Amino acid sequence: MKLVVIGGDAAGMSAASQARKRRGPDDLEIVAFERGHFTSYSACGIPYWIGGAVTGRDALVARTPAEFAEAGIAVRLRHEVVAIDLDRREVTARDLDGGGERREGFDELVYAAGAVPVTPDWARVDAGGVFGVQTLDDGEAIHAWLDGEPRPRRAVVIGGGYVGVEMAEAMVRRGVEVTLLERSPQPMSTVDPDMGERVHRAIRGLGIEVRTNTLVQGLETAGGRVTAVVTPDGTLPADIVVLGLGVRPNTALATESGIPVGVTGGLRTDLQMRVVGPAGRIDGLWAAGDCVQTVHRISGQPVHVPLGTHANKQGRVAGINLGGGYATFPGVIGTAVTKVCELEVARTGLTAKEATASGFEFVTASVESTSRAGYYPGAGTMVVKLVAERRTGVLLGAQIVGREEAAKRIDSLAIAVWNRMTVEEMTALDLGYAPPFAPVWDPVLIAARKATDEVHASR
Amino acid sequence: MKLVVIGGDAAGMSAASQARKRRGPDDLEIVAFERGHFTSYSACGIPYWIGGAVTGRDALVARTPAEFAEAGIAVRLRHEVVAIDLDRREVTARDLDGGGERREGFDELVYAAGAVPVTPDWARVDAGGVFGVQTLDDGEAIHAWLDGEPRPRRAVVIGGGYVGVEMAEAMVRRGVEVTLLERSPQPMSTVDPDMGERVHRAIRGLGIEVRTNTLVQGLETAGGRVTAVVTPDGTLPADIVVLGLGVRPNTALATESGIPVGVTGGLRTDLQMRVVGPAGRIDGLWAAGDCVQTVHRISGQPVHVPLGTHANKQGRVAGINLGGGYATFPGVIGTAVTKVCELEVARTGLTAKEATASGFEFVTASVESTSRAGYYPGAGTMVVKLVAERRTGVLLGAQIVGREEAAKRIDSLAIAVWNRMTVEEMTALDLGYAPPFAPVWDPVLIAARKATDEVHASR
Repeated sequence: MKLVVIGGDAAGMSAASQARKRRGPDDLEIVAFERGHFTSYSACGIPYWIGGAVTGRDALVARTPAEFAEAGIAVRLRHEVVAIDLDRREVTARDLDGGGERREGFDELVYAAGAVPVTPDWARVDAGGVFGVQTLDDGEAIHAWLDGEPRPRRAVVIGGGYVGVEMAEAMVRRGVEVTLLERSPQPMSTVDPDMGERVHRAIRGLGIEVRTNTLVQGLETAGGRVTAVVTPDGTLPADIVVLGLGVRPNTALATESGIPVGVTGGLRTDLQMRVVGPAGRIDGLWAAGDCVQTVHRISGQPVHVPLGTHANKQGRVAGINLGGGYATFPGVIGTAVTKVCELEVARTGLTAKEATASGFEFVTASVESTSRAGYYPGAGTMVVKLVAERRTGVLLGAQIVGREEAAKRIDSLAIAVWNRMTVEEMTALDLGYAPPFAPVWDPVLIAARKATDEVHASR
Repeated sequence: MKLVVIGGDAAGMSAASQARKRRGPDDLEIVAFERGHFTSYSACGIPYWIGGAVTGRDALVARTPAEFAEAGIAVRLRHEVVAIDLDRREVTARDLDGGGERREGFDELVYAAGAVPVTPDWARVDAGGVFGVQTLDDGEAIHAWLDGEPRPRRAVVIGGGYVGVEMAEAMVRRGVEVTLLERSPQPMSTVDPDMGERVHRAIRGLGIEVRTNTLVQGLETAGGRVTAVVTPDGTLPADIVVLGLGVRPNTALATESGIPVGVTGGLRTDLQMRVVGPAGRIDGLWAAGDCVQTVHRISGQPVHVPLGTHANKQGRVAGINLGGGYATFPGVIGTAVTKVCELEVARTGLTAKEATASGFEFVTASVESTSRAGYYPGAGTMVVKLVAERRTGVLLGAQIVGREEAAKRIDSLAIAVWNRMTVEEMTALDLGYAPPFAPVWDPVLIAARKATDEVHASR
């Protein structure tokens, strides 16, 4: 029996490892194709590597091809799978360095090709200095460009989401002047405007120029290098342009091979991460990671949430099932955290905007409190916002913006959302209390109290 | 209508405040009696005040008598209620400074007399230098003693629980030589021995001499001052002795007045914090805080857990109901956190020892991981231990010992315990992930994975 894995990052290699754990090399041969130079790396760590907080690319690699080889998993680096033949059960892989092609038969196939940066037509210029932030190879290229001659002095980051903001901060730390362009009225639109406003201020506080409501019209180049970004409000000189416009599932190969995708553009799977087409499961075909569509457990809607933590979980689930075990991936609730300078930003479940779009009637409650007892040194302020269903009081979502020790409190709220707790029941939660860790009423509890009042008032 | 409150700290004054919020002074007169000098203070903050992290006693006072007066709540400081006449519906209060007694009628009575330090007969000596750590007055007395002449050089702390360990560290910070005596094989016996061993090492690392398996036999005094602690292994010189032997509900007044207590020694209440006797609710009588007994939601057993966070919640619930609203206190799950130097210690639900005592069959799983991505600066190690019911996999309890950013992860586990999640479902939880906040598999998830394996192996 042979397992072929397309994509050598978190999802694919988690699947390979879990399958190997349960089935030895005599029982199952495993071959993974990866078009880049690296396996199992943390793409989320790239901004910190660029910014200098993380030293050295290798720190971001969790497991090398040599380590996989030792575990009996063959990895073919710089090999891009260019065709899947489901009937003949073989893939065709192109050697990106050597130039040849090879065919590889399979009994089981894991499709874990990840995502690709959204790249509008205007960004497809034949010039250096324009980068996505998706792979470790991208990170290497950005590093080389920033260290190269002529030394870039001015950067424009296009898109104010997580990656855009993290990259903007990273380049400021490298001494580059940064302008951040965002098409909506505010960066970090993954949180509600009242919360995003605080993040907006923090970004400006880093010395980053933020231009909102700004649509990019084009790039200018000269001598094979990007030189400027064109917007309706003027042309911004730029020695480096970073695209932070999000990513889309890398499913071109799948659709070319007759494997259908869902409404979000990602592959559809069942709970065990088997690929599902219009006629049901596709035999022997699995998918995991940034190329798949999943379900939002609160809105019930299909969503595409490219995030390392989901990729790892989905890969693990596919691998356990491939190996003869049983595991399921039941969907996501939209938890995300990030850091902008000293400001921590976190969300879970649905924002007010998303709750409206999902058809919920709801109330919101925001409170300001501190991470530790007010009198204990180092107590930082934070704002906690809850979204709860009107009348039932079921917690639909939460957002936190605050200083140190704020963001990870989102986990408590995520587990409350996951379990469909009411904000009223949450007021009784037995959370950890001691002056170095929380006020006697934890910010989460204060928020639950206020939301309970709002729910009662809404009845 | 008149409400009388016995005890001016967290529980009593929360009840008073919530009742006042719902019923104006014309509708409800409120009088609170407090035998000490302060209202609504954080007793949990006393060790940090002694150690110098918190400067000034007033920082620990959340709300002064003057502030209560402004809100229409009369507080009689230094007044100890010495009798309750339920038939005549009046209390007798002694003026501890003036010396007189006054009677006060009531329609509703909140009993919130708190707890008193466990004080064995050998500790009742007629000498200075022996302290409990229960009230702000205790804190003042300890401060005065440590600053007085002759200046204390050697301290003995008796009891290695939260307060004992916190006070031992505080006195080390004051430059006093500290010996900690613990009767069990290890201090911090609120966590399992494998976890407590790490705490034990951290305490010794502070330069504190720890003597375990040590029962105190008596104290020696001279010239009205404590001079030594006598143990079977020898006599320890001591210029100050701190009792950290725990507390018991302060219910002497209640029992003298014919109000019965539960098996833990605390007052029994219903969900709304109305006092319950053998014949059911006692009309117009409420109780909250360190003097009440509550239920452990996982073991189902009655427990006495004196902790500010419960006192505040119970007081709030009593006050809302007193004010004509509706709220309930559904019990506790034993969550607690503390800090020993840089080591954070947390627990929730049942330890292995408690699970055994409760009659559960269970498995345990311990994992070591980091608070942030391993490559991100400042990642500290932590150990997470889970206790899960055999076969069902329901999470019964969790413990964490680790460096910074470890302890508050107990909140996630507390909410999982509260909701009776299985460790298998927990492996899918959508927790916050970004390199500054967690590895791609949060320690909580890694522990859930390992516990799931243990549960499967136990079937």
